[in-house]
Amino acid sequence: MAKPDSKRGAMAFVAGRPAATPEDQVNNGSLDQPPSSASHEASHTPAAASKSKSGKQTSKENLSRRITESEVYDDGTNTFFWRAHTVTVLFILTCALVYVTLLEETPHDTAFNTKRGIIASILVFLCFGVTQAKDGPFTRPHPAYWRFWLCVTVVYELFLIFILFQTVHDGRQFMKYIDPKLGVPLPERDYGGNCLIYDAANNTDPFHNLWDKMDGFVPAHFLGWYIKTLMIRDWWMCMIISVMFEFLEYSLEHQLPNFSECWWDHWIMDVLVCNGLGIYCGMKTLGWLSMKPYQWQGLWNIPTYKGKIKRIAFQFTPYSWVKFEWNPASDLRRWLAVLGIIFMFLLAELNTFYLKFVLWMPPEHYLVLLRLVFFVNVGGVAMREIYDFMDDPKFHKKLGQQAWLVAAITVTEFLIVLKYDPHTITMPIPFIVTQCWLLGMVLIVSWTLWRFFIRDITLRYKETRRRKQEDTGDRGEHLGNSNNGNGSPTTPSSGRSKLNGSTESVRQRKS
Amino acid sequence: MAKPDSKRGAMAFVAGRPAATPEDQVNNGSLDQPPSSASHEASHTPAAASKSKSGKQTSKENLSRRITESEVYDDGTNTFFWRAHTVTVLFILTCALVYVTLLEETPHDTAFNTKRGIIASILVFLCFGVTQAKDGPFTRPHPAYWRFWLCVTVVYELFLIFILFQTVHDGRQFMKYIDPKLGVPLPERDYGGNCLIYDAANNTDPFHNLWDKMDGFVPAHFLGWYIKTLMIRDWWMCMIISVMFEFLEYSLEHQLPNFSECWWDHWIMDVLVCNGLGIYCGMKTLGWLSMKPYQWQGLWNIPTYKGKIKRIAFQFTPYSWVKFEWNPASDLRRWLAVLGIIFMFLLAELNTFYLKFVLWMPPEHYLVLLRLVFFVNVGGVAMREIYDFMDDPKFHKKLGQQAWLVAAITVTEFLIVLKYDPHTITMPIPFIVTQCWLLGMVLIVSWTLWRFFIRDITLRYKETRRRKQEDTGDRGEHLGNSNNGNGSPTTPSSGRSKLNGSTESVRQRKS
Repeated sequence: MAKPDSKRGAMAFVAGRPAATPEDQVNNGSLDQPPSSASHEASHTPAAASKSKSGKQTSKENLSRRITESEVYDDGTNTFFWRAHTVTVLFILTCALVYVTLLEETPHDTAFNTKRGIIASILVFLCFGVTQAKDGPFTRPHPAYWRFWLCVTVVYELFLIFILFQTVHDGRQFMKYIDPKLGVPLPERDYGGNCLIYDAANNTDPFHNLWDKMDGFVPAHFLGWYIKTLMIRDWWMCMIISVMFEFLEYSLEHQLPNFSECWWDHWIMDVLVCNGLGIYCGMKTLGWLSMKPYQWQGLWNIPTYKGKIKRIAFQFTPYSWVKFEWNPASDLRRWLAVLGIIFMFLLAELNTFYLKFVLWMPPEHYLVLLRLVFFVNVGGVAMREIYDFMDDPKFHKKLGQQAWLVAAITVTEFLIVLKYDPHTITMPIPFIVTQCWLLGMVLIVSWTLWRFFIRDITLRYKETRRRKQEDTGDRGEHLGNSNNGNGSPTTPSSGRSKLNGSTESVRQRKS
Repeated sequence: MAKPDSKRGAMAFVAGRPAATPEDQVNNGSLDQPPSSASHEASHTPAAASKSKSGKQTSKENLSRRITESEVYDDGTNTFFWRAHTVTVLFILTCALVYVTLLEETPHDTAFNTKRGIIASILVFLCFGVTQAKDGPFTRPHPAYWRFWLCVTVVYELFLIFILFQTVHDGRQFMKYIDPKLGVPLPERDYGGNCLIYDAANNTDPFHNLWDKMDGFVPAHFLGWYIKTLMIRDWWMCMIISVMFEFLEYSLEHQLPNFSECWWDHWIMDVLVCNGLGIYCGMKTLGWLSMKPYQWQGLWNIPTYKGKIKRIAFQFTPYSWVKFEWNPASDLRRWLAVLGIIFMFLLAELNTFYLKFVLWMPPEHYLVLLRLVFFVNVGGVAMREIYDFMDDPKFHKKLGQQAWLVAAITVTEFLIVLKYDPHTITMPIPFIVTQCWLLGMVLIVSWTLWRFFIRDITLRYKETRRRKQEDTGDRGEHLGNSNNGNGSPTTPSSGRSKLNGSTESVRQRKS
């Protein structure tokens, strides 16, 4: 069901947003009035957005329909599954509270009650948030799913803030409330060690060093980078972050012993095999997601069982797709944004290791895993919101809520690390490492200066000079035109006519 | 600047929402494209709502523009004041956290740090909420103001949930963390007492009983009812709630001693003087608000100083106005909704007294006052959201967030009262009082049955009979028409022609 006027719809841009034809509406199918009246109406109340649940969803996606966004067809089915259940949730919550208050005996254990009260508060907050919080950019499998993660983000950030305000000792002991096994110092561990790939001394298995590294972290690295690629949606940025992180591991191995790995672990196992394969698979999936048709029919409108099952499975794919085109070199704002994103991304990755180090969390603890699951769910939304904010600041006036929170969380985690273990983090960096980083920074700054300042000035100078030349040429041409048919004009006007041509084509496109 | 086609704009309704003329747009002035392109665009992307800050506001008000809503003119000025400051707030928050972490010494007092950590968490939550929470129906003086109160509502509800899960002793002692003077039993007080208006026994001042009652609660009652009238926006509902509350005081004076008042304190001082005057002034203000023009110009677009000052003052009046027409008798849903609102309203009022009784709060404590200030700010939004949800369920699919929270808070407060002092609240109600309430309930139920079930059936029966009669009359008329000019038709057709006329006028109005 390829739409004939899809290109046109995407081209007819007004102020960064699409001006669509009435046929679009019919195809979207989310408006239940006839197109003429609907357009008339919507023209006055732009807020037709929240007219109906389905309308809202469609519009949420329409919001950001740019050239890079896929076409979406939605028959606008609005079943029980999609409806807001605000009153139902309120009723169930009330019943639960009544049960707890009237039918349960409160134990006389203050610590237990405090814990229970805090958990109950969090649950009520989730009840409120899942039904009522502001929707983000994602709607599949269900907007409530993303509202849930938004609330979890808020709770996690508040937890971090609380931890930040405790003394180091209290903070570490506080973890005992979550898991009594926590709050004890971690045993010293040694990574790296023997780096021989082929260990001739070991007769039974000379490759034992290699097999030692093949633990649960290999699939974890692969899966992690697969998901990170889906978040970032750009091959270059993924590769840069992947390589930069190995450099960071090299630079910080004097602080955290588990950063010290063998050279082949860094470059072959991590960058090439795990990350590289993850990024490759991610890019393949991205290609599929940007090409796949986005047709949404209500489950009851699909005749066959196979179709129904397929539709249910597709509920777990995105509602629509936006290709990220970061274009960092196109202007200074985007360049700084991309640098900032890479910086925050690497900081968040480092936090994973430092945070468990300073809070005495064993690497295999379920909280460490939960934090990663959390970031997987939250990072995609945040990245999309940052992209929207960067790409289309006229339309997305606010930095998205999830992006805001993820930034705050990354900063708070880093501050906790800084407060809880100032000794480790201020261990002097080896001189050679400092030099390398300084060199890198100098390169980045000078490239920035050249690309966005010096190059611009020279380009502008050249443009002015060319204009001047053309101007004299122009006058000459006029002279030439006036004695039309008499012979050749005095100067060639190819440059100007090209310019004219382009403005004309722009005008045509606009109309 | 009365608009000539304001009536027309308000009449041209499609599915409960206005279909406006292009002139409306120009007058609203919030769209910066020419009307034709804007309407074209908005027709496709109903989400034009969030196009710009000002557009968003206008649209938010347009959302619910019904017959009962005032016309609004907005020149769409979008200054620094209105812009979202998400990144700025994030930056300031980061700086504050960095300052606290790196430059402040954390004291070695766990209790103090815990308190500080909780306060910091709440502040961070407010930072997040004020910049990022979902906007409600109100936008003046600033949407951030209402987002702030939304966040306060969430915090208050979570606090109540926490208190609900403590033992009675711990809960009361927990108040000591907020104010060390709390957590001690209240002294017994005696209200009522001597009810003689003219006390002949007292020679110096025979009216001393009257003057005794003239305390700070008189202006508080007046102000309270003035604000409640602005919330409810209906004379009848206010009067019913005001009178019902006095009945409740009579019924519950055996439980709470401060409900026992003299008869003239109940009916003359409270209902007539304080509440009555408050409601009267409230209704006058409501009249002014529904008549006043809603013209919003940017401050820099106003030439005179007087105009600028007036504009600043008007920033504290609503952006637009919706008259509430509760129409409880029009259908069962509205009737139940109005009953529910009155019930919740009275419950919230009772909670004020019971909650301070069970949590040992002295009536003059600042927390009691804060709770009232909170309800004043939050109740208006909640009432508007409930009205929207009741009046226009097709458009407002969700019960508003503030209404949801206020309902949850009222329930939680009541449950706290129930849990903390089951003895007081289950004191047997005097037999005569029970009888009166039973009678009242029987009356309400029977009226409901008559109005929405029995009357409907009889009406439907009558309608069917009339139709049948008309049907035979119709056939007779056709016969009469066929021998046109021959004489009088066999049956009078006045009923049918009237019906025809009305449908025709409806059709005309629709076109």
